[in-house]
Amino acid sequence: MNQMNNETSAVSALTVDQDRLWQSLMEQGKIGETAKGGLNRLALTDLDRQVRTLFIQWCKDAGCEVSIDQIGNIFARRSGRDNTLPPVMTGSHIDTQPTGGKFDGCFGVMSGLEAIRRLNDLKIETEAPIEVVVWTNEEGSRFPPCMMGSGVFTGQFTLEETLATRDSDGVSVDEALQSIGFAGERSVTGHQATAYYEAHIEQGPVLEDEQKTVGVVIGALGQKWFDLRITGVEAHAGPTPMDLRHDAGLATAHVMIFVNQLALKYAPHGRGTVGCLELFPGSRNVIPGQVDLSIDLRHLEGDILEAMVAELKAEIARIEQQFGVTAELKPTADFPPLAFAPACVNAVRNATQALGYSHLDIVSGAGHDAIFMAEIAPAGMIFVPCEGGISHNEMERADAKDLAAGASVLLNALLASAGRVN
Amino acid sequence: MNQMNNETSAVSALTVDQDRLWQSLMEQGKIGETAKGGLNRLALTDLDRQVRTLFIQWCKDAGCEVSIDQIGNIFARRSGRDNTLPPVMTGSHIDTQPTGGKFDGCFGVMSGLEAIRRLNDLKIETEAPIEVVVWTNEEGSRFPPCMMGSGVFTGQFTLEETLATRDSDGVSVDEALQSIGFAGERSVTGHQATAYYEAHIEQGPVLEDEQKTVGVVIGALGQKWFDLRITGVEAHAGPTPMDLRHDAGLATAHVMIFVNQLALKYAPHGRGTVGCLELFPGSRNVIPGQVDLSIDLRHLEGDILEAMVAELKAEIARIEQQFGVTAELKPTADFPPLAFAPACVNAVRNATQALGYSHLDIVSGAGHDAIFMAEIAPAGMIFVPCEGGISHNEMERADAKDLAAGASVLLNALLASAGRVN
Repeated sequence: MNQMNNETSAVSALTVDQDRLWQSLMEQGKIGETAKGGLNRLALTDLDRQVRTLFIQWCKDAGCEVSIDQIGNIFARRSGRDNTLPPVMTGSHIDTQPTGGKFDGCFGVMSGLEAIRRLNDLKIETEAPIEVVVWTNEEGSRFPPCMMGSGVFTGQFTLEETLATRDSDGVSVDEALQSIGFAGERSVTGHQATAYYEAHIEQGPVLEDEQKTVGVVIGALGQKWFDLRITGVEAHAGPTPMDLRHDAGLATAHVMIFVNQLALKYAPHGRGTVGCLELFPGSRNVIPGQVDLSIDLRHLEGDILEAMVAELKAEIARIEQQFGVTAELKPTADFPPLAFAPACVNAVRNATQALGYSHLDIVSGAGHDAIFMAEIAPAGMIFVPCEGGISHNEMERADAKDLAAGASVLLNALLASAGRVN
Repeated sequence: MNQMNNETSAVSALTVDQDRLWQSLMEQGKIGETAKGGLNRLALTDLDRQVRTLFIQWCKDAGCEVSIDQIGNIFARRSGRDNTLPPVMTGSHIDTQPTGGKFDGCFGVMSGLEAIRRLNDLKIETEAPIEVVVWTNEEGSRFPPCMMGSGVFTGQFTLEETLATRDSDGVSVDEALQSIGFAGERSVTGHQATAYYEAHIEQGPVLEDEQKTVGVVIGALGQKWFDLRITGVEAHAGPTPMDLRHDAGLATAHVMIFVNQLALKYAPHGRGTVGCLELFPGSRNVIPGQVDLSIDLRHLEGDILEAMVAELKAEIARIEQQFGVTAELKPTADFPPLAFAPACVNAVRNATQALGYSHLDIVSGAGHDAIFMAEIAPAGMIFVPCEGGISHNEMERADAKDLAAGASVLLNALLASAGRVN
């Protein structure tokens, strides 16, 4: 079943219909559109139902067979010559953040649909079937965690526990799926795929900064997240001389700077971010007695990521001594680094080169459904630039030409993996 | 009227009745006592009325004439031989923070009362009258600003605007004064004082750290407070390489460390504190796009305080450049440094030495009613240690012997300024 055809097939250089792709993106982007031109389309809401229904209609119009699984993932299947082969899959998500954009996720789904439409235009038959998938609740904004649908599909999360997860109003995933009519019958687990590709906006500034059209995604950064609580002694800002302070805020500032230095030390694939910080008691003339902060460390190599954590712990111990504070570091998430399958990475790179697009190898810093899919199938991703690297924001923008370039790369990569018959 | 007798009188070394002082403190400390042994006795509440009533009864029992002014300040007057002389005043406040202690403020008031009781015991007559004052709403917890009563008395705030100030429930100072029966008739302004002394717990750790009993307060730190907003670019923690970030949080960490360095540079009287900090959007995998923080700089010398501000501004400009962020610094408060009157400082030091207490010269880092009183009269303060330097806290503690020492110093300083007749 390990039938990766990309290395034997000739590399094709087909292009998608740029206008049709853009039209699809703009039309889906009316459902849940915000005043600022973004999208507010949380998972399993009525707006999600509307866009799912539209997508299914488009897929049926393109001759696909549509099925829904138990977690609400949608599969639109274009038959191959040999339908006993596991499908070559592509897709992403169409739920958004509360103040999200029209491209994050939606681009991957609409690119997959456009690839199928283009194969139809050209009457091209493939050896293996091709499936476009819409993963349920990738954003995790309404129901934690992120990447829920692909997580259950690939066995990362159990169906039972996931269905029981509730949103802040107490509504369960199960109830929400029922209420929008997307509690499907297809078994969510036990599936195979010949390959999985996902086209996505970069969500970062690298392609724009380097003026490249396509990012050939070679892997995804490993992530280690922590909560850190630093406890000092709350005291009056006036009467307490500097040398008698145990300032939890000052100790925190040193941690923040070290987290940054740590990521710079392990450039270019190191990341270090303090995204949350709460300081207590939070009075302008009181020395902070406690600070709670988050630390997010990332790297492409597992052993370096481990080294970063070890160095962070040593520095925190030093800071405890220097400032007379105590620190408590708790891991909150741990995702190992991922190298995408060479066959898929090559298929993407070959297609990009055949099409003549400027490109560079890039890593995914964020989580994507492709990262879970890589657990059960050879997987790869294609990035295109987004304006200013901005996403999860109503200001999210991407260029129609760049999006078409990414979708064209996807089309040829799918073809390479599925095997072109005619 | 500038009749400061301390330099001509012999220095006396009378001591107060330690047990009586402690009993007074403990008895007033039952009114509004919290489960943790602190006090919750906000200004102009019924609990404030109860403690005021108790204080007035004690003063009347000690033979004082009591009057209330238009802002509710209470004056308990012990006649002198020459009642045309402006009184020598002492006092503090008996309102507390919502989770305050039994000593902050109350010690100063009860020490003044104990001094009068002791003069009565010893049948000592003074040339000038002595007045013990209870200042309304020193804490500012219910009605802003702090030091309200002494502020109106010394012309810092107008009576009309102050009476119109409302608490968070919409009750005005005027209404609250009326409701507890403390809207007095005595004019709040136009008074003179021969001298003003205030005994207070240190609210800092210096005396305890240096193992001294009495702090001879030579002045009060000037304060310059700022709000600083740092604006960077919010971006995803994963996909955004370190060199393309505009991290408002990282820039803030550098400001925090500089504020500390600035205070250390101008030791021992420099202070630099970041007490408030809010980071946006506050998501663990998002690079902060904005941080709002407070900066509190203090120093005993006005020109150094100005230099600290200039250096801070230069460093913020440098940080803007280094991290590609913008910063907006707004002053929010500005109190000039204060040197207490040499005559009063000497009276306190002389009394301390005559009594044989270990002592050191100290500065007040916090605001006190004495700082406003210094605007209209020679003023001085006496500090005694408090456990761990902790105040504005139910854990606030002070030693009965130390408190008696402070009250004894007050007694002799009052006597020096008022002139002992017999």
